[in-house]
Amino acid sequence: MHFLQIPGPTNVPGRVLRAMSRPTIDHRGPEFAELTLDLLPRLRAVFQTRHDVVVYASSGTGAWEAALVNTLSPGDRVLAFETGHFATLWCQMAARLGLEVDFVPGDWRHGVDPDLVAEHLTDQTAAVMVVHNETSTGVRSRIPEIRAALDRAGHPALLLVDTISSLGSMDYRHDEWGVDVTVGCSQKGLMLPPGLGFNAISPKALAHPGRMLRSYWDWRPVLAANRTGYFPHTPATNLLYGLAEALTMMEEEGLDQVFARHDRHAEATRRAVRAWGLEVLCADPREYSSALTAVMTPPGFDADEVRRVILERYDMSLGAGLGRLSGQIFRIGHLGHFNDLMLAGTLGGVEMGLRAAGLPIKEGGVQHALAYLAETGS
Amino acid sequence: MHFLQIPGPTNVPGRVLRAMSRPTIDHRGPEFAELTLDLLPRLRAVFQTRHDVVVYASSGTGAWEAALVNTLSPGDRVLAFETGHFATLWCQMAARLGLEVDFVPGDWRHGVDPDLVAEHLTDQTAAVMVVHNETSTGVRSRIPEIRAALDRAGHPALLLVDTISSLGSMDYRHDEWGVDVTVGCSQKGLMLPPGLGFNAISPKALAHPGRMLRSYWDWRPVLAANRTGYFPHTPATNLLYGLAEALTMMEEEGLDQVFARHDRHAEATRRAVRAWGLEVLCADPREYSSALTAVMTPPGFDADEVRRVILERYDMSLGAGLGRLSGQIFRIGHLGHFNDLMLAGTLGGVEMGLRAAGLPIKEGGVQHALAYLAETGS
Amino acid sequence: MHFLQIPGPTNVPGRVLRAMSRPTIDHRGPEFAELTLDLLPRLRAVFQTRHDVVVYASSGTGAWEAALVNTLSPGDRVLAFETGHFATLWCQMAARLGLEVDFVPGDWRHGVDPDLVAEHLTDQTAAVMVVHNETSTGVRSRIPEIRAALDRAGHPALLLVDTISSLGSMDYRHDEWGVDVTVGCSQKGLMLPPGLGFNAISPKALAHPGRMLRSYWDWRPVLAANRTGYFPHTPATNLLYGLAEALTMMEEEGLDQVFARHDRHAEATRRAVRAWGLEVLCADPREYSSALTAVMTPPGFDADEVRRVILERYDMSLGAGLGRLSGQIFRIGHLGHFNDLMLAGTLGGVEMGLRAAGLPIKEGGVQHALAYLAETGS
Amino acid sequence: MHFLQIPGPTNVPGRVLRAMSRPTIDHRGPEFAELTLDLLPRLRAVFQTRHDVVVYASSGTGAWEAALVNTLSPGDRVLAFETGHFATLWCQMAARLGLEVDFVPGDWRHGVDPDLVAEHLTDQTAAVMVVHNETSTGVRSRIPEIRAALDRAGHPALLLVDTISSLGSMDYRHDEWGVDVTVGCSQKGLMLPPGLGFNAISPKALAHPGRMLRSYWDWRPVLAANRTGYFPHTPATNLLYGLAEALTMMEEEGLDQVFARHDRHAEATRRAVRAWGLEVLCADPREYSSALTAVMTPPGFDADEVRRVILERYDMSLGAGLGRLSGQIFRIGHLGHFNDLMLAGTLGGVEMGLRAAGLPIKEGGVQHALAYLAETGS
Repeated sequence: MHFLQIPGPTNVPGRVLRAMSRPTIDHRGPEFAELTLDLLPRLRAVFQTRHDVVVYASSGTGAWEAALVNTLSPGDRVLAFETGHFATLWCQMAARLGLEVDFVPGDWRHGVDPDLVAEHLTDQTAAVMVVHNETSTGVRSRIPEIRAALDRAGHPALLLVDTISSLGSMDYRHDEWGVDVTVGCSQKGLMLPPGLGFNAISPKALAHPGRMLRSYWDWRPVLAANRTGYFPHTPATNLLYGLAEALTMMEEEGLDQVFARHDRHAEATRRAVRAWGLEVLCADPREYSSALTAVMTPPGFDADEVRRVILERYDMSLGAGLGRLSGQIFRIGHLGHFNDLMLAGTLGGVEMGLRAAGLPIKEGGVQHALAYLAETGS
Repeated sequence: MHFLQIPGPTNVPGRVLRAMSRPTIDHRGPEFAELTLDLLPRLRAVFQTRHDVVVYASSGTGAWEAALVNTLSPGDRVLAFETGHFATLWCQMAARLGLEVDFVPGDWRHGVDPDLVAEHLTDQTAAVMVVHNETSTGVRSRIPEIRAALDRAGHPALLLVDTISSLGSMDYRHDEWGVDVTVGCSQKGLMLPPGLGFNAISPKALAHPGRMLRSYWDWRPVLAANRTGYFPHTPATNLLYGLAEALTMMEEEGLDQVFARHDRHAEATRRAVRAWGLEVLCADPREYSSALTAVMTPPGFDADEVRRVILERYDMSLGAGLGRLSGQIFRIGHLGHFNDLMLAGTLGGVEMGLRAAGLPIKEGGVQHALAYLAETGS
Repeated sequence: MHFLQIPGPTNVPGRVLRAMSRPTIDHRGPEFAELTLDLLPRLRAVFQTRHDVVVYASSGTGAWEAALVNTLSPGDRVLAFETGHFATLWCQMAARLGLEVDFVPGDWRHGVDPDLVAEHLTDQTAAVMVVHNETSTGVRSRIPEIRAALDRAGHPALLLVDTISSLGSMDYRHDEWGVDVTVGCSQKGLMLPPGLGFNAISPKALAHPGRMLRSYWDWRPVLAANRTGYFPHTPATNLLYGLAEALTMMEEEGLDQVFARHDRHAEATRRAVRAWGLEVLCADPREYSSALTAVMTPPGFDADEVRRVILERYDMSLGAGLGRLSGQIFRIGHLGHFNDLMLAGTLGGVEMGLRAAGLPIKEGGVQHALAYLAETGS
Repeated sequence: MHFLQIPGPTNVPGRVLRAMSRPTIDHRGPEFAELTLDLLPRLRAVFQTRHDVVVYASSGTGAWEAALVNTLSPGDRVLAFETGHFATLWCQMAARLGLEVDFVPGDWRHGVDPDLVAEHLTDQTAAVMVVHNETSTGVRSRIPEIRAALDRAGHPALLLVDTISSLGSMDYRHDEWGVDVTVGCSQKGLMLPPGLGFNAISPKALAHPGRMLRSYWDWRPVLAANRTGYFPHTPATNLLYGLAEALTMMEEEGLDQVFARHDRHAEATRRAVRAWGLEVLCADPREYSSALTAVMTPPGFDADEVRRVILERYDMSLGAGLGRLSGQIFRIGHLGHFNDLMLAGTLGGVEMGLRAAGLPIKEGGVQHALAYLAETGS
């Protein structure tokens, strides 16, 4: 059995794969409408919103684009923060789409500093773009504090948040935290293969559409069709089957339990990392990700070589360092469909792989993780 | 067993569903690159092109948008023809994206008249948009003759063709017919669930990118990443598994045999329709679709009621009349994964359903179809 | 899509195949006990019994053996009737197991004559063996009348009935009809792959165990273990998953509707056969099978050649003539998971195949079947 | 993900489950014959025999019965050894089938002592029954030495060997070791769900059939039908699909590598057990099983409580102590589809569970196992 411990796509549960292997149905027939009308409210619960969630046949990148083109107008200024690779890519997208980006530099080891948000807001700022959980670094930005900073400033900018690798694994509250557009996708915490992108939308964002040109990504025809259970374009039916099953699994476990499980696995992972004598990339404990842990390899040791050895010897995929972190870190995904024994196997593979790759680690990381898991299990 | 005889999504073969239920893999790992590098050349064969085919996580609508935003510039004029509902929708998309559309009216019973193409070309025409097989009407446009008209006019306009419901069911030759962008998708002739969109791209189209803003749909980063077997955004991995299997099935049968099978089933269907005393919507035998047959119900008989009765009594889904044909036709899909006995079942269901819905048809349509199938089978 | 129209194994529904692809569980754990304790009462309903049903990992042949070795003693006499190939095989088994068989000859076109039962009972008759639905001929024996004959004779012989191809497709009442052991299996009306054998057991049969040596087939340890949800030997877990799903499907449709559906399809099939100018093997309308129809080919026409042509040209499997009927009949299975359009496809394939094989049939059989289906559908 | 670490059924690979979910085919058609004729020679390779292997729709218990009833005659004496629960059950079966059993007592911690074999052979001994790998104890009997003992004695008794939990996980050589009948099944090393039983048969065993009554289990009709690719009774088609896929997986890895992998995992497991301060049940290192490890709980600690805690907290199933070992041991299955990281997870779960159940173990078992795995991996 392959261990797919990249920070997404994640291990798809057999239940979900089986659900997805049902025959495709007529997307304009009554059975389909029942599926949609059952699915959408349950999907909202994962975003912790009472408002609309739009589902696209797309990757998460597509959902990024949808968030921008539905809310902004040509030439609008957006404020963004260099928390890592994906925050950078999202900004590049904004620029390519003709937006002006104020990009606040960062060290890729911290989340967005709420104080800096206030500092960089200008009269022209139409939206603030934040990545909730930076998949490239394992650093979480504190959305409620960012919201508070905007509120204190009394600034009307929209708050756009990427939850691609946090949604369904880490506590996230679209409504309570006052987010305007939340961007998500299928292949991480939602335990599905890639192919679905999501936008959760605040009433404010819906009420003030931007003037950017759009067609495929336009929320309005989707929302209109969704009211009766349909989609304006052919939806990715079999992924929706899988989504319904994944939601059932999350409901069975309970969303709070899902989050607690991920918090616990992340802490166990960090304990292993420290016991090995290695450093977690995330520099601020308030900003630890519960979805993945990025581990720094010591100078002189190529993290990609570690990953190669682990893939070859132990049939486990880990995430690479991206962009400026290339070769300097590897990322352990512990999100989505995951349990204590899968984590034990994962950390066992990392520990053996680090040794096999010749890193001067201390043994016993797995043991520290197990001790923590044993103490905190229920 | 449900008979899914809408003109797409089509009946997904069990082989494809099983292939799709394999675990998702790391889209940045070596196994994935092998998958891509194997898949893309085989996909090109279905378009009958030696050039690039770009694969999106999207519906076919997304691939429409990609064709436009990669080739055109803001305010460009495009020439299009009202062959039916989807041609109309594509034009609406073009207009929403800021293009000027010259939309030549049509009666929804004919394909694009090649003479009209020549007639409507202007110096400003940047592209001609044609739907090869109008899914809403079962009418085929004659691409080679349209190409010839452009050539005769010596006009440099790009030729953009929608093959959403013809690709993989009807003969289509991207290179030989001089098409610049061919738009396709997964859930019709390719026998997959929905979720993949395609653009086949001519060297000319690639060499002259438009200036429309784009990011998700931009061909360039996709083509660059594809060279080494990867994608710039997370691809819809499990649908790609299915695509590889579907291509294998088509290769086993032989593309010519696939087309001949569909031609034969379409002719058998039309014979049944005529034997029932009903009329095929497509008015010109040169333009018959081999993927679907739209059947007109006599005045006073609601085609949607026929469909409702057939779904309820015989567990078969047929396509509705769309747009201005609403209630006046039903569409029988005989594309994708289909064989003689499935057609016999389909036509049996239509005949029984027409009777049950009270239409004054003549019996014996199935018998005429069987006679034709028996004569022409091998 | 292949049409598997042999009289079993039958077309396994996708729902059942997906249920069977769940991971195997610990057959001694609590989850397994829940499965068994849920399953067995629901299985009894298909036999229309309130008493025990034993499930074996075996073919139906194994369940035949179980019926004999649990109830009889070495050298016992059994009375049986030559209704066809499988009745003959069951007698051969009895003989091989050391029983004395009184085998009443038959013409393979009639079921068991209840009057002959009375006539052939002797003081030594320990059991009467009857095949409810002879799979080799499509002839049904009238169990209630046979029971009545035994009752009239006041004879204590056990009544052992093979329902291999009738169970779950044709009305069968273990309790009401006073049957002592009913033999069944998975791959026919129960819509599963082969691999499970069943014995439904009357209190009388259970109370009077025979003295034949037995171990694997012994009911007693199975019944004892089943009380708590377990099996003495490792059960065929994944087939049990499929069985649970198949029972759910039957419960959703309703057992009476299942039987009515098969009666209707059988009548439609016979009408097609007669319209072709061919003869149904079953000679007595009271004994028509609702599970399959055996069709006689005219002298000089090899039925196996017809089958070969149909398999090759139309991808449909039909049943061969067995034993003394070899080459003289083909058998159309219309049992298990089947609906009107699958029957239309099936009969379409037979009609085309008969023509292709050169048989001088009249056309229009399918049309007659459709007319009957249309009149009687709901 | 559930960890199914009982000593069978084992974790069925997704590849095998997907192969099994193919539609059932006509077991009398040409496609089926191809399947059988491809499968049987490949199956022989797992037994390391050039001779016949018979496949039953049955559990392994059925294959035990087949081994006896095909080779022995009523009242024959068989020599057997009390190596554990399953050796005892096999003897009970022999007795129930009317054989005389010389049952040599044992302590359930040792395999068959080859010297005792010689000692207990009598002129009447028709067969010697040995369990190669006692699933209830994790003790292996040394078949080559037992064979040598028989040879030294010049005794003609048949050698019948149960390889139910060793086949496909531990080196086993039907031909080289001079075994007459080898009994196997599907749900252990062959990585399938339960439902298939096997007999590998020596020419000697085949040439001297016994006189016990038999029908379902009779080798002769099976072998005769197998010659052309068929079975006398309906075979468990979908399990055969799975078998073909499982054989492909074993061929890809190489049988020697499969055995080496299991040897290595067993040694790692024993190192963990010792590091915890617990005792392996198997008393003789020459007899360690590579398929499972039975672990003794200290006096006063109920092994079933340990298992209950592990199932509840860590979603892992372990094997119970059977028969006289009830509550005194638990069994860790490390056979079939298994790799280093699954073992790390398994041992992690055992270690945490032992702690959670209050056993006074030393920590660090997992760490010792990992160290061994790291040293010996390749």
